[in-house]
Amino acid sequence: MPDHVSTLEELKQTVAAFAEEREWVQYHSLKNLAMSISIEASELMERFQWVDNPESNKLVDDSSARQAVEDELADVVIYALQFANRANIDLSDAIERKMGINAIKYPIDKSKGRSDKYDTL
Amino acid sequence: MPDHVSTLEELKQTVAAFAEEREWVQYHSLKNLAMSISIEASELMERFQWVDNPESNKLVDDSSARQAVEDELADVVIYALQFANRANIDLSDAIERKMGINAIKYPIDKSKGRSDKYDTL
Amino acid sequence: MPDHVSTLEELKQTVAAFAEEREWVQYHSLKNLAMSISIEASELMERFQWVDNPESNKLVDDSSARQAVEDELADVVIYALQFANRANIDLSDAIERKMGINAIKYPIDKSKGRSDKYDTL
Amino acid sequence: MPDHVSTLEELKQTVAAFAEEREWVQYHSLKNLAMSISIEASELMERFQWVDNPESNKLVDDSSARQAVEDELADVVIYALQFANRANIDLSDAIERKMGINAIKYPIDKSKGRSDKYDTL
Repeated sequence: MPDHVSTLEELKQTVAAFAEEREWVQYHSLKNLAMSISIEASELMERFQWVDNPESNKLVDDSSARQAVEDELADVVIYALQFANRANIDLSDAIERKMGINAIKYPIDKSKGRSDKYDTL
Repeated sequence: MPDHVSTLEELKQTVAAFAEEREWVQYHSLKNLAMSISIEASELMERFQWVDNPESNKLVDDSSARQAVEDELADVVIYALQFANRANIDLSDAIERKMGINAIKYPIDKSKGRSDKYDTL
Repeated sequence: MPDHVSTLEELKQTVAAFAEEREWVQYHSLKNLAMSISIEASELMERFQWVDNPESNKLVDDSSARQAVEDELADVVIYALQFANRANIDLSDAIERKMGINAIKYPIDKSKGRSDKYDTL
Repeated sequence: MPDHVSTLEELKQTVAAFAEEREWVQYHSLKNLAMSISIEASELMERFQWVDNPESNKLVDDSSARQAVEDELADVVIYALQFANRANIDLSDAIERKMGINAIKYPIDKSKGRSDKYDTL
């Protein structure tokens, strides 16, 4: 599904306003936000705790399960945006740079069709 | 730092192409991607394992620590984008809807300056 | 494989001595130790990131993979023991009490052969 | 608090019987159990999400918070025991061996009073 036109900058401003209105910036240390990303990631993962891989892909065919999964994924990214705000990170930039690093670590010819970690390729 | 103009849609296409070129889509079950988000979130968190909250905010003043932190945050969001691709999720939409839910769970007057969970407010 | 005769009490004392000799108790807040358990759990999970369920069981047939998995599992439990030390928890007691709670949440007749969460049984 | 006399072997047998009676061994792949340890670790961590380090130590002074924390810690160790059962690991052995490795990685004279990772000592 194509994402509608939000930029990361717009989303960062939305989540920043949410925290400021509630005077929550005081709780948003980088340590606490990193913990929060991890906690939300774990809640997303919990949805797939007992299924196998093919079954996990079908789980979102059910609309109520899909809704829950979308909410958990959103929570992960919301805290990632809060983290970017607090650490003053240009997230698009960081992603593009990291994708460049990944392209070097995983050259197409060596990594094609293989799930091995770069240091064992 | 204002994010430059990337939309989530552009970033989703970048990470999709990366996986397709390497024939990695076969490994990208929702279960595996949820695990991957969690693993990367944990690597980000590890950077702040032994510091306290105020110290965690200063950690990114050092440019080599900042680089590492930005890379780990990017990895979290890259896998979130891969997940959105595989589950056919409009991520901007999901974030905006979840922010609406959060606004109801945490009304400004009840949650201002408090870190309590919504069910104890 | 039957575990040799160590009691949790003996193991708790071993890990307590290790931290005290290194003057690490100052870093062992409950927050930091909970993070540490989570970080080590994630490192264990990383070993199984891209395999499916049946393959994950065979992974420990290889002796070098087994060694790595055993080390990661040990790290999780070592931090759990440090946590029990710092929070003054009788861990055997806590486990036995929690098993009693689980037996009530998951009655044999309702939960047999099902992976459903207790609130949906 | 000294742990009462349970050995890891006794606890492993208790949790094994629980899974067998419910025919849950089919769900207990090493991949799923590693995920489960991580999910429970995250629930423990959530208890300390917004507090700072000194406050985290006081949190267990409250008896209802303590009960919740003990239950979450127990869940982590219960799944670690299930994992040891399924992977046929002597957990006491693994812990003692890993403590030996840690003692070499972190010599007392170099690591005393420092939270640095072994590769930067």
